[in-house]
Amino acid sequence: MAGLIEPRTLKGFRDYLPETMIPREHLMETARRVYRRYGFVPIDTPALEYLEILTGKGSDETDRQMYRFTDHGGREVGMRFDLTIPLARYAAQHISELGTPFKRYHIAPVWRGENTQAGRYREFVQCDFDTIGTEGVASDIETGLVIHELFCELGLSQFQIRINNRQILSGILGKLDLLSQSTNVLRALDKLDKIGADKVKEEMKTTAGMSDAQSSEILRFAQIDGSLSEKLQELSQMLKGSEIGSQGVERMCSISSAMLAAGVPDSRFRLDLSIARGLDYYTGVVFETILNELPSIGSVCSGGRYDNLAGLYTKQHLPGIGASLGLDRLLAALEQLGRIPKSRKTADVFIPFFDAERLDDYIELAATLRRYGLAVELYPEPKKLGQQLKYADQKGYVIAVIAGKDELDRGVCQVKNLAAKISTETTWKEDPEILVAAIRNLLDLSQGKILA
Amino acid sequence: MAGLIEPRTLKGFRDYLPETMIPREHLMETARRVYRRYGFVPIDTPALEYLEILTGKGSDETDRQMYRFTDHGGREVGMRFDLTIPLARYAAQHISELGTPFKRYHIAPVWRGENTQAGRYREFVQCDFDTIGTEGVASDIETGLVIHELFCELGLSQFQIRINNRQILSGILGKLDLLSQSTNVLRALDKLDKIGADKVKEEMKTTAGMSDAQSSEILRFAQIDGSLSEKLQELSQMLKGSEIGSQGVERMCSISSAMLAAGVPDSRFRLDLSIARGLDYYTGVVFETILNELPSIGSVCSGGRYDNLAGLYTKQHLPGIGASLGLDRLLAALEQLGRIPKSRKTADVFIPFFDAERLDDYIELAATLRRYGLAVELYPEPKKLGQQLKYADQKGYVIAVIAGKDELDRGVCQVKNLAAKISTETTWKEDPEILVAAIRNLLDLSQGKILA
Repeated sequence: MAGLIEPRTLKGFRDYLPETMIPREHLMETARRVYRRYGFVPIDTPALEYLEILTGKGSDETDRQMYRFTDHGGREVGMRFDLTIPLARYAAQHISELGTPFKRYHIAPVWRGENTQAGRYREFVQCDFDTIGTEGVASDIETGLVIHELFCELGLSQFQIRINNRQILSGILGKLDLLSQSTNVLRALDKLDKIGADKVKEEMKTTAGMSDAQSSEILRFAQIDGSLSEKLQELSQMLKGSEIGSQGVERMCSISSAMLAAGVPDSRFRLDLSIARGLDYYTGVVFETILNELPSIGSVCSGGRYDNLAGLYTKQHLPGIGASLGLDRLLAALEQLGRIPKSRKTADVFIPFFDAERLDDYIELAATLRRYGLAVELYPEPKKLGQQLKYADQKGYVIAVIAGKDELDRGVCQVKNLAAKISTETTWKEDPEILVAAIRNLLDLSQGKILA
Repeated sequence: MAGLIEPRTLKGFRDYLPETMIPREHLMETARRVYRRYGFVPIDTPALEYLEILTGKGSDETDRQMYRFTDHGGREVGMRFDLTIPLARYAAQHISELGTPFKRYHIAPVWRGENTQAGRYREFVQCDFDTIGTEGVASDIETGLVIHELFCELGLSQFQIRINNRQILSGILGKLDLLSQSTNVLRALDKLDKIGADKVKEEMKTTAGMSDAQSSEILRFAQIDGSLSEKLQELSQMLKGSEIGSQGVERMCSISSAMLAAGVPDSRFRLDLSIARGLDYYTGVVFETILNELPSIGSVCSGGRYDNLAGLYTKQHLPGIGASLGLDRLLAALEQLGRIPKSRKTADVFIPFFDAERLDDYIELAATLRRYGLAVELYPEPKKLGQQLKYADQKGYVIAVIAGKDELDRGVCQVKNLAAKISTETTWKEDPEILVAAIRNLLDLSQGKILA
């Protein structure tokens, strides 16, 4: 006999066991449902693209991390490392057929050969949604609403959406004569949460040559306190005379006001001038989403408005806005917070295969319950009942429908609550609805949400 | 300005536009729902594996087609070309934690750099389900039921599940003293549909050195006609004295009898001794699914029972059974049959942004409808109404909810049937349920299934 090949995954990659894949599918299904509820439509693009497409705009870092090779036909190819560049290529290629505004979502894996850390893998799923071909503030509002609804729908209440606007930052920088230093200023400001005000001031002095007065003023802006609407009022005063700054404030006021109209509490969105993601990429509103119980893992859903999506591939000007749910990062966070229950099952009911002679009866019983909309797992072998119930228990089943020869002859079964260890005899052959009602009743009592 | 990069996809790869991705997602959701209804649980594995894992059992053909390269860490890696080898590796690695029987489904893309033909791509999604660690005939039955329910649930009625059994074939071959030639015989038999009986006989003579009597007898078996249960009766007679053949017939009888118990018509399953897929891989029942209207594209869902899944990676003996829905092949077939409607939308209702001053009212209207479970697309810019309705029409909307200043002031709106061009004024501010009921009524009238 030849030697065995050691079964193992590549460094930085992971297998999803059922107890993790079940909530992961739940996250994807929830994202899909919310995106669709706002009229976003799904697309898909290939995992592999021509290398020149992927390296077109990438940074040195993404270039270095990209999985690339020469294919059978001698083409230089790469595996996508995000869903934004494929979207830009896709939009440039198909926009005349798609028309604008074009609202798409895309849920798919991406690959980055980066150094692995806790909760970060070399393969992870992104859930992006974008609206392309419009500058309307209604899209800014909608993006915020979708992010908010995503987390509510996942049963999470302890989260905060931090919101900022590149135009407001530009207005401030303009008033302080710092526009030429904006990248350095924003890069320093981005670290406010991590390193604190003093170190940020120091960095601003070193990299952007700012005076104490300038950096103090910037930090005063960044640390304005209060609700979104209160802060915007204050900012509006401070930015008087800056056209771009006032435009930014006005768009943010539209967002604030619309959130109230949509019934979203003002406190959910928190103006945070220190978030400066995307630096030169984003041109308007930007979003970050923080889990209050685990802020250290960073933003789990981020995005913003950009001025021109596909400039590398087409002359057509395509402004847009979008955000990306970091699905696998969120999943890792929920695991860490103990919010993922230990269930390994997808069915509602377990049926032991009790009497070896009566397989057809079990098949009929299971088929009957499925016709009434219940998901049913039938054990595939007539093993000892205790062994089968142990299996059911390990999977997390709470209901078993048990029938031996005697029950089958009489057209009845035992509905067993596995947690309480109580059984009730119920008819099914004569009127399956009685059995179905008994099961649904138990399910209602015991059912926890997948993400409790 | 630098030159543009031409936006294009690699040869053999495709972008999914919304009108194709919407039904593709529907197929995946349906597969997931059916698999879960039988208690199968989801897993996921990496797209990339160590090359030695993937080449362990592959044929020369899959080896040649595999995308492979050396990664950043100098590891030889490959992109998976099916979901079976990753399952074998996964089972070998985790089975002690998972326990048996282990029932998993896996819906994911695979890659093969094969020569492209119509409807065949180098990247395609497979939807596999398998039951590992049991030889129980209940799993054979369940596999057939799942395949049957998949296609019923997709609204397809014109399909046929062809079923065979490797044990029966072995029984026949044994009776004819042809066991040593079984690969050649089965390979010839597999072509019966394509090249006809005479050519098959010729091939059997050339490659397996069979006499006319032997090949005639084999073909007589292969061409037995009648329903599943009738055929099995005849086979049972013919195979008397062959232990393995009789075992095969007995298992097939269990399947036939259980299908009736589950309410599946006998005619759905057709015993077809000419299907000999997997040759040496499958050891028991095998399935193929043919679309009656498009048999030429071949089987869209195939599988069978195997004796030992993961022998390359573990000494643990893991028998099992499973099947794979060729999602993208099925989608291509449905496109070809004109069974994919031209809808490009995911929402129920379209709301034009009519009065530029009243954005908050539209946001409130849309949020209200979404709270009642409706999916709503709000146009992001206050363009001319005609232009917005043209957009709605192109997407395939049948319902628009229209309100101008006057309507908004009065808390009403127009519910417009875009097909019939009829509008009805309806209140919403006072009692949203009246509007919701009006919309649902129109939806019920107009709603087609995604796959009609």
